[in-house]
Amino acid sequence: MGCHMAVRGPRKDSPRLTARGAATRERIVATAADLMFRQGVTATTLDQVVDACGISKSQLYHYFPDKDALITEVIAMRERRMVSSQKPQLDQVRSMRDLERWRDSLVTGHRERDVPYRCPIGSLANELSCYDDARQSLAAIFSRWQGLLADGLVRMRESGELDPGADPAELAVAVIAALQGGYLLAETMQDEQPFLVALDMALDHVKAHVRTPVANLTQPDT
Amino acid sequence: MGCHMAVRGPRKDSPRLTARGAATRERIVATAADLMFRQGVTATTLDQVVDACGISKSQLYHYFPDKDALITEVIAMRERRMVSSQKPQLDQVRSMRDLERWRDSLVTGHRERDVPYRCPIGSLANELSCYDDARQSLAAIFSRWQGLLADGLVRMRESGELDPGADPAELAVAVIAALQGGYLLAETMQDEQPFLVALDMALDHVKAHVRTPVANLTQPDT
Repeated sequence: MGCHMAVRGPRKDSPRLTARGAATRERIVATAADLMFRQGVTATTLDQVVDACGISKSQLYHYFPDKDALITEVIAMRERRMVSSQKPQLDQVRSMRDLERWRDSLVTGHRERDVPYRCPIGSLANELSCYDDARQSLAAIFSRWQGLLADGLVRMRESGELDPGADPAELAVAVIAALQGGYLLAETMQDEQPFLVALDMALDHVKAHVRTPVANLTQPDT
Repeated sequence: MGCHMAVRGPRKDSPRLTARGAATRERIVATAADLMFRQGVTATTLDQVVDACGISKSQLYHYFPDKDALITEVIAMRERRMVSSQKPQLDQVRSMRDLERWRDSLVTGHRERDVPYRCPIGSLANELSCYDDARQSLAAIFSRWQGLLADGLVRMRESGELDPGADPAELAVAVIAALQGGYLLAETMQDEQPFLVALDMALDHVKAHVRTPVANLTQPDT
């Protein structure tokens, strides 16, 4: 009883693929990622992936020996997507205002694209936490996400906006926790309010570490 | 493709059971709840439940026509357990100190019993969000949990500890979101630190609404 899946790290010895082969492989991973996002990992069968891709089962097995290998690649794709969507924005964070822009873009992203409030990383983490290899890969994704955010907070501390005593790494953990909890409640309630409330709490938490501006006594009265 | 399970509301027409029958039924639900907690709902088969209970499949079917009926009862059991563990403590909340006690008891509960950082409600919610009946039942559990906490915050507002402008319902949503996100990160990282950090953020968020004590100018200098 328990967790039997052996999710491996990414294969280092992937066979060389033609451009067309690489595209098919990528399409299989993207399709599986989408199905697993919408209905869960365990609930997603290889037959469903094959049907949704319009390929044969033997084609699938040409690229992936089994479901575990496919899950490993889905996780790797989720990391690439998180980085490509989050890094450009978080790399811009130099002030509280930038952090608010990041919050706003998360919210408008859901509103505009009408995608459900559900985190692709968080939902995999919840379902795969008992599979140690997958769990570690997902922990690494959370760490990377927190790291991108913490780098922005470090810049805010260096510029003097954040208190020298503020701990960027710890603040980043708190913000990502609020984000994840906000996703889960919003998803379950089918209401964006818990997501907004959680993110506002997180940003207020960072704001509590903003340095109180010291009145500039030498400023001329103009 | 998608979500096919029809999770129903609790049956109103459950057959009368003997005391022994009721005990067997309860044991089946508790066993299923435990397996689903540890390995997920979809990953848990009726054969595993039967094996773990030491009963026959026909005995299981005597109580539950199918897996969906069992899931419905597992959700109902999780609600009863949440209420029985959370209500006595949250009903005591009348001050910030009581809220800190609640936080401490959540943490020591995990440390002492050595149970994984994983919320039985949150993990069900993540996996079953695409099944509308189950999702609604789980949303109702979150609402009830938030309500128990909000009642405590209302008492803190009435006693004058919280600012009259504080919104107990919204604060409760924020705290439960932090709790859920903290659980997910702690579970994935296998580290209690994100749980502690998230809960501290949540309590600081409530504390930000504590009324600033007005200096008692009439107090004698003794």
